[in-house]
Amino acid sequence: MPQLADLNDFRRRLAALPGPDAGAAAAARARDATLTKPPGALGRMEAIAEWYCGWRGDPRARVARPQIVVFAADHGVAARGVSAFPADVTAQMVANFRAGGAAINQIAAVLGARLDVAALDVGRPTADFTAAPAMDDGAFLAALNAGWQAVDPEADLLIPGEMGIGNTTAAAALGAALLGGAPGDWVGRGTGVDDSGLAAKAAAVAAGLARHGAALADPLEALRRVGGRELAAMAGAIVAARARRIPVILDGFIATAAAAALEKAQPGALDHCLAGHASAEQAHRRLLDALGKAPLLDLGMRLGEGSGAATAALVVKAALACHSGMATFAEAGVSGG
Amino acid sequence: MPQLADLNDFRRRLAALPGPDAGAAAAARARDATLTKPPGALGRMEAIAEWYCGWRGDPRARVARPQIVVFAADHGVAARGVSAFPADVTAQMVANFRAGGAAINQIAAVLGARLDVAALDVGRPTADFTAAPAMDDGAFLAALNAGWQAVDPEADLLIPGEMGIGNTTAAAALGAALLGGAPGDWVGRGTGVDDSGLAAKAAAVAAGLARHGAALADPLEALRRVGGRELAAMAGAIVAARARRIPVILDGFIATAAAAALEKAQPGALDHCLAGHASAEQAHRRLLDALGKAPLLDLGMRLGEGSGAATAALVVKAALACHSGMATFAEAGVSGG
Repeated sequence: MPQLADLNDFRRRLAALPGPDAGAAAAARARDATLTKPPGALGRMEAIAEWYCGWRGDPRARVARPQIVVFAADHGVAARGVSAFPADVTAQMVANFRAGGAAINQIAAVLGARLDVAALDVGRPTADFTAAPAMDDGAFLAALNAGWQAVDPEADLLIPGEMGIGNTTAAAALGAALLGGAPGDWVGRGTGVDDSGLAAKAAAVAAGLARHGAALADPLEALRRVGGRELAAMAGAIVAARARRIPVILDGFIATAAAAALEKAQPGALDHCLAGHASAEQAHRRLLDALGKAPLLDLGMRLGEGSGAATAALVVKAALACHSGMATFAEAGVSGG
Repeated sequence: MPQLADLNDFRRRLAALPGPDAGAAAAARARDATLTKPPGALGRMEAIAEWYCGWRGDPRARVARPQIVVFAADHGVAARGVSAFPADVTAQMVANFRAGGAAINQIAAVLGARLDVAALDVGRPTADFTAAPAMDDGAFLAALNAGWQAVDPEADLLIPGEMGIGNTTAAAALGAALLGGAPGDWVGRGTGVDDSGLAAKAAAVAAGLARHGAALADPLEALRRVGGRELAAMAGAIVAARARRIPVILDGFIATAAAAALEKAQPGALDHCLAGHASAEQAHRRLLDALGKAPLLDLGMRLGEGSGAATAALVVKAALACHSGMATFAEAGVSGG
């Protein structure tokens, strides 16, 4: 997709998002009632199929070309002892994604998804948000554009994922900036920090909130100031997908925090997004509750990379396979319905 | 697999079930700790992988040959107004399964599973259990054998499913016989009965319990007297899978009721079984709680056919793909772990 010209261009696009095709959704609902099953017997799979068909503008849509994009970036705040892993791991994991060795590679293969890896200046961290905005306007625009341009226009489902040592701390600061609450409400164990790491995370969030103050009232400014390149890129990708009416599955805490900035900036901006799973990172529930989204899976995952969303995509693919592949009562000669 | 000689043969096999390979499970656990992810970050997927590897006797197992078997049968109790659909629908749905038009066909295709359909004297219902045992000893043995022989010895995951108009009433009677409680605790809307249908179900269960009385104290006798051919076949298949150390995913209320008869007859008989999902049929939770099994998915499904378990199998397949396909920290050159 063509580049975003500037931040105002992004704001304009966010204010002019297309909606679903109500006719296609209604036709999908009507089709569901004719399928060889008792009404409602596929439960949430039926609602997912109707939602997906509406966004695709096709009453008999399928998930045929899912795309996963893992955005990776480094964080200045990682220097504050907020992660159980050294910052080098971001670059090492990018190499692992490219070599096919990470969890998301395996899940992508099961799903039959295209997997892209977008390394966003890995090795060159954002500024430590406790001292300065994480990104200046140029870096923020570049990150939004990286997400904007990463979306395959031919994809029919998008899973934005992330990797970035320190990024649960950025997501916690963003969550607190967007939705309020104490730093302790927003920080968790992440990749597995101990009590002192947890305290360092809460302190970093508190310092970030104090440093940026009232500037955080603007959700996109909050994303720029306390977020990170991969969070901004996920936000850009989610809006790009919406522009193409490509449904999105949200992954865990970090992806959902990035998405929440969009919803706060423009209510309804996430109507094309499904919550894939509930992360073990406790503040994820707080985000999902605020967004009014019920997670599809609850498996105690907390890996990121898009792994929870890609696992959920298997269920979405099955839901659409049922919806679009099943025979009707009339076709099958089955009584009832 | 060779036929069961008689019911005592089945009881003997049930009393001599193999366990998992503790060494393979331990090796799988050790491998998990070396994979390029924070410890525990795949949540329940990790426990599933360890459980599966233990049963397969392979610390790096995959789900490569899943098998779904849909057992179909008719029920004498269907004449008592306990279903929203006419009894003819069992045979019509068998034709639909064979033609590829049912929900389970679509999910099987997404999973890459072999799908077998075993029609068990469809069109010739069992006896109405309110008046007589549903099956005599010969019919019960034949149904157990149908399940026993349906399992592909080369399968690495088994999903027993069912179709049978009236079978939520049989499952409700079986649940009450095995676990106690009032008929009203065990009956639900099934395929969508109205209040009078629900009352007819409760009345049939009460009449069945009264008719068979103390004979129901033996779990396999309960399966014979108030169950049905597809329930007995699922029980036979679950034991046959155990004999081959093929893990099983339990579907909804009816499959779980059949499985519960095995667990009551032989505690531990379901150690190779995972609860695939929580059905919208309310009494399913009661069974799962009694079995101490936490469902993997909770999507409000209530279709049967193995549909919930086959959807859950997608998650199991992804879990094993991660476990067995991921690079280790050493292989990928990633710090930590």
